[in-house]
Amino acid sequence: MLSRVIIILVEPTHPGNIGATARAMKNMGITRLHLVSPKRFPSADATSRASGADDILENALIYPSLDNAIADCQLVIGASARTRVIPWPEITPRECAELVAQASMSADIAILFGREHSGLTNQELDRCQYLLTIPCNPEFSSLNIAAAVQIVTYELFVKSQAFTSLPQPAISTPEFATAAELELFYDHLYQTLQTIGFIHPDKSKSIMRRIRRLYTRTRLEKKELDILRGILSATQSAKS
Amino acid sequence: MLSRVIIILVEPTHPGNIGATARAMKNMGITRLHLVSPKRFPSADATSRASGADDILENALIYPSLDNAIADCQLVIGASARTRVIPWPEITPRECAELVAQASMSADIAILFGREHSGLTNQELDRCQYLLTIPCNPEFSSLNIAAAVQIVTYELFVKSQAFTSLPQPAISTPEFATAAELELFYDHLYQTLQTIGFIHPDKSKSIMRRIRRLYTRTRLEKKELDILRGILSATQSAKS
Repeated sequence: MLSRVIIILVEPTHPGNIGATARAMKNMGITRLHLVSPKRFPSADATSRASGADDILENALIYPSLDNAIADCQLVIGASARTRVIPWPEITPRECAELVAQASMSADIAILFGREHSGLTNQELDRCQYLLTIPCNPEFSSLNIAAAVQIVTYELFVKSQAFTSLPQPAISTPEFATAAELELFYDHLYQTLQTIGFIHPDKSKSIMRRIRRLYTRTRLEKKELDILRGILSATQSAKS
Repeated sequence: MLSRVIIILVEPTHPGNIGATARAMKNMGITRLHLVSPKRFPSADATSRASGADDILENALIYPSLDNAIADCQLVIGASARTRVIPWPEITPRECAELVAQASMSADIAILFGREHSGLTNQELDRCQYLLTIPCNPEFSSLNIAAAVQIVTYELFVKSQAFTSLPQPAISTPEFATAAELELFYDHLYQTLQTIGFIHPDKSKSIMRRIRRLYTRTRLEKKELDILRGILSATQSAKS
């Protein structure tokens, strides 16, 4: 799915933003970057901010116009902060990921990000099937361009994980205590709390319930249980 | 919900990242920023990258240590890229938003982001009830810190939109122990375990880490903490 996605920056002014965009893309497994008339590129600022995503920058394709850059794409989505006078099909980053997952089986998909200060022009938005709007604080709605790319590519990556449902990495899970082991622990604890005079058989039911609840909720590992029982044994030895 | 969230940067090196973080936060309606021993701050670089989020920078609180910065928080979540040897409750940014929505009815919540190159130390992670891991390309998993903040705060904002539109359930949630109260408990526990001869100062670090992890993960309620400290006091009295 992700290999079908092309991120397009239209006339970016600051090369640092191109580098930060490359890094954001690579973090989310997206590699295809098109630049439409960048003001300065290549640039040391771009390379520095890419922090190792140099391959994305090296393979970036530069176009003189947006139409060239999107020529082979069957789906074009434009990121836009502004609310348009003309209503347009508007989608969130999450809906965008859904759409891309469906479309990516057959086609390349372009996602456009506009100039730092003025975004995409109306003519450019006319090339887009959808407008992508990132939910944000209405009183401070101008996101850094690489930050916007980061959110959109993050949603794409999350969707791609669910989509491809890759075999799960073999994480070693700890061994948890069994219910029977927990009961032995609670018995041991109860005896110890009596030994140190913390509870009395007739009137401490609610305290034991609270303690049981605490440890049951925690889902104790076998190793942790061993430590706790070690503490109880040490307490009893110290007392006697 | 969002007013309960505190973003904490631990020893950030580049002031530009502090500014970009402030912008990312304000874009998503989050205003509380704590800085633990920033290398350079205030700084023109920070202000420049904040692009108008100057109020976040001006109101940022600076602390000498993480413990001070999280003292009043009842839920502490640490962002971490690394997979730990010791398994820890791990959550995604989306799960984090869910958790924050629930917890925010009663408490302040800290979300920690570590140093640019080395992240959070194990000692710092020991303060966290949850590890927050951003899904990303396993071969290029180091996100810029402001980009990481952007993704996490974006998920919080999206959740807050859904959350505030619903009538608030009147659930009485228990009061949880604060980070400062937990530290006092761990001190008390450490003393007690020495008293009963269960641990020795030179060679029991890993046991204390395991015990801390157990109780931190549990998210102890204030009442539970009272019971546990009562047990410790009773143990010490019984011994003496």
